[in-house]
Amino acid sequence: MKIAVDAMGGDFAPAVVMEAIQSALTEIPDVKILLVGHKEKLSYYMEKMNLVPSDRLELVHAETVVEMADPSTSAIRAKKNSSITVCATLVAEGKADAVASAGHTGAAVAASKVRMRMVDGVDRPCIATIMPNVTGKWILTDAGANTDCTPLNLAQFAVMGELYAKLGLGIKNPRIGLLSVGGEDIKGNELTKETFKILSKMPINFIGNVEGHDTFTGECDVVVCDGFVGNVLLKSSESLALATIHWLKEVLMKTPMRKIGATLAQSAFRELKQYGDSDEYGGAPLLGLNGVCIIGHGSSTPKAVKNAIRVANEFARLKMPQLISERIYACGIDKASYAKKHESDLSSDNKHKTGLAH
Amino acid sequence: MKIAVDAMGGDFAPAVVMEAIQSALTEIPDVKILLVGHKEKLSYYMEKMNLVPSDRLELVHAETVVEMADPSTSAIRAKKNSSITVCATLVAEGKADAVASAGHTGAAVAASKVRMRMVDGVDRPCIATIMPNVTGKWILTDAGANTDCTPLNLAQFAVMGELYAKLGLGIKNPRIGLLSVGGEDIKGNELTKETFKILSKMPINFIGNVEGHDTFTGECDVVVCDGFVGNVLLKSSESLALATIHWLKEVLMKTPMRKIGATLAQSAFRELKQYGDSDEYGGAPLLGLNGVCIIGHGSSTPKAVKNAIRVANEFARLKMPQLISERIYACGIDKASYAKKHESDLSSDNKHKTGLAH
Repeated sequence: MKIAVDAMGGDFAPAVVMEAIQSALTEIPDVKILLVGHKEKLSYYMEKMNLVPSDRLELVHAETVVEMADPSTSAIRAKKNSSITVCATLVAEGKADAVASAGHTGAAVAASKVRMRMVDGVDRPCIATIMPNVTGKWILTDAGANTDCTPLNLAQFAVMGELYAKLGLGIKNPRIGLLSVGGEDIKGNELTKETFKILSKMPINFIGNVEGHDTFTGECDVVVCDGFVGNVLLKSSESLALATIHWLKEVLMKTPMRKIGATLAQSAFRELKQYGDSDEYGGAPLLGLNGVCIIGHGSSTPKAVKNAIRVANEFARLKMPQLISERIYACGIDKASYAKKHESDLSSDNKHKTGLAH
Repeated sequence: MKIAVDAMGGDFAPAVVMEAIQSALTEIPDVKILLVGHKEKLSYYMEKMNLVPSDRLELVHAETVVEMADPSTSAIRAKKNSSITVCATLVAEGKADAVASAGHTGAAVAASKVRMRMVDGVDRPCIATIMPNVTGKWILTDAGANTDCTPLNLAQFAVMGELYAKLGLGIKNPRIGLLSVGGEDIKGNELTKETFKILSKMPINFIGNVEGHDTFTGECDVVVCDGFVGNVLLKSSESLALATIHWLKEVLMKTPMRKIGATLAQSAFRELKQYGDSDEYGGAPLLGLNGVCIIGHGSSTPKAVKNAIRVANEFARLKMPQLISERIYACGIDKASYAKKHESDLSSDNKHKTGLAH
């Protein structure tokens, strides 16, 4: 598999990416890397790291880079020659099998959508993120690719999350929950009420509405919501995790006795931090595209970037886009079938109404 | 001030409520309590607790109670004689100044909306919740009263949150943020984009869009969002807090050395739990009503219920509903002005479009 790696994306690029590539070439058999970025800059860094171009490591020039402060759309407008856009184009043209980037998330979404397009049957892509809970891990879809969604979008995110839970976490029959509010009587908002109806009819292990309380407690393997809600959930959780570490330090430093206790238990606190560590997964896949794209945190470590390359390689090998397309069709929620069904639902609703009026 | 207390609401009612009333009568000077619930049952409990009816403690009969498993609407349909509905009616009829309940949140919202109605200018009420951050406290509006909102609703929630931050937290010029996603270039979803325009023109300390990362870090005093997003944020945070305690125990019990450390630092962990303790605030006010209603957690302790009564008493004394109404008008976002402005905006938009077409 050939992985196009965005060498310029991320807060510590390209140095971090170079380190990642060194280990990727050693640890992942047969992987080929297309290193995308400004050739001169990359050559300088490669020399410093004793990396030489080979049949497993090729340089591809990209004139610019989408900086973190740039708007997402610059990837497809002002900076069409940016490293992330070149990566997406390589996949679109069949010159690479997957993209791995630790750069600007919005730019990666924009470039991938425009260059790779959706896989057959899918309306919009979603970002799938692995999160921890008290019994293991769960998957959040969509974690932020789409701010306004339709019921069909959410139903498709459910299927993509299901596949990721199966193939990424090894869960045989993932429990899929629709993120909503309150108990059984409040069915959620307009979007979730409609989505509930679709999910109920699909051949998936749909466990119904779940609420915020059910997220980190292990009630559910895939939590489905729109990208606005998902992004708020993801980022406020990260914020609370940081605040909790702050508070923990605060209370542990208050008395000499507590300080001694904290010193003895020091390694436990380091271990605690790892519960939220996403480096293992290398980032979040953007699912639903006609190609593979793995997006890392902007502040990715070499280990995280290496794992992003590993996951990109695996997903390309598994033909993840095709698997998603097939499952979407099997669930009867491909764009075309859904539009047809929806139309006939509407017309039968109308008939019903006319019947009542008579 | 006369406070109607829902004696039957909450997981441990009426025993917990009785204890709360004992301390409320001692600690809050001049407060009068209308204890609402099934008279026979309450008399039995009062006798056991040596509570006797007086000019400061009166019993009001309510035939039924909305149980936690009941639908919210039962407060205004099947159980019109429930304790929460009788409480709301007492305020609506001027026989009480405020309601305090630790019962079914949805039922309290439904009963209050229907019986008390909105205060002049307000379209919908919101639940305002006090949350911790690394520098102090912040307020979340709406934490779950409305699942589908308009830009006007959100603008009004901002004003209610502002007043609560001033009067409840003593913050002079509260920083108000609109909860959204991503950086500056992604302006959010359709709802927040429209809301942003309104908030920008209001005489409040609007600091623009904030994202999940800014919630627990102290960037902002009031976070404004719709009740669906707010409820997900609130409940997933509670879920993460519980999971973190679970993980902390797990890592601390792994080695004998850590166990000793944990024992020495034991009091610190107890203190850590208190950061998320909402008992001090006694619950969340339902703001925007033509009356005061404070809603406690279903699992409220006597201290929490007592504090709910204290806050209800203070808000009634401050005439919180009138303050909200005045501020809503001062900001030019009362229902009538907004509708008028919106209409003229639309017609000038149309004129503009016609101009372009020529």
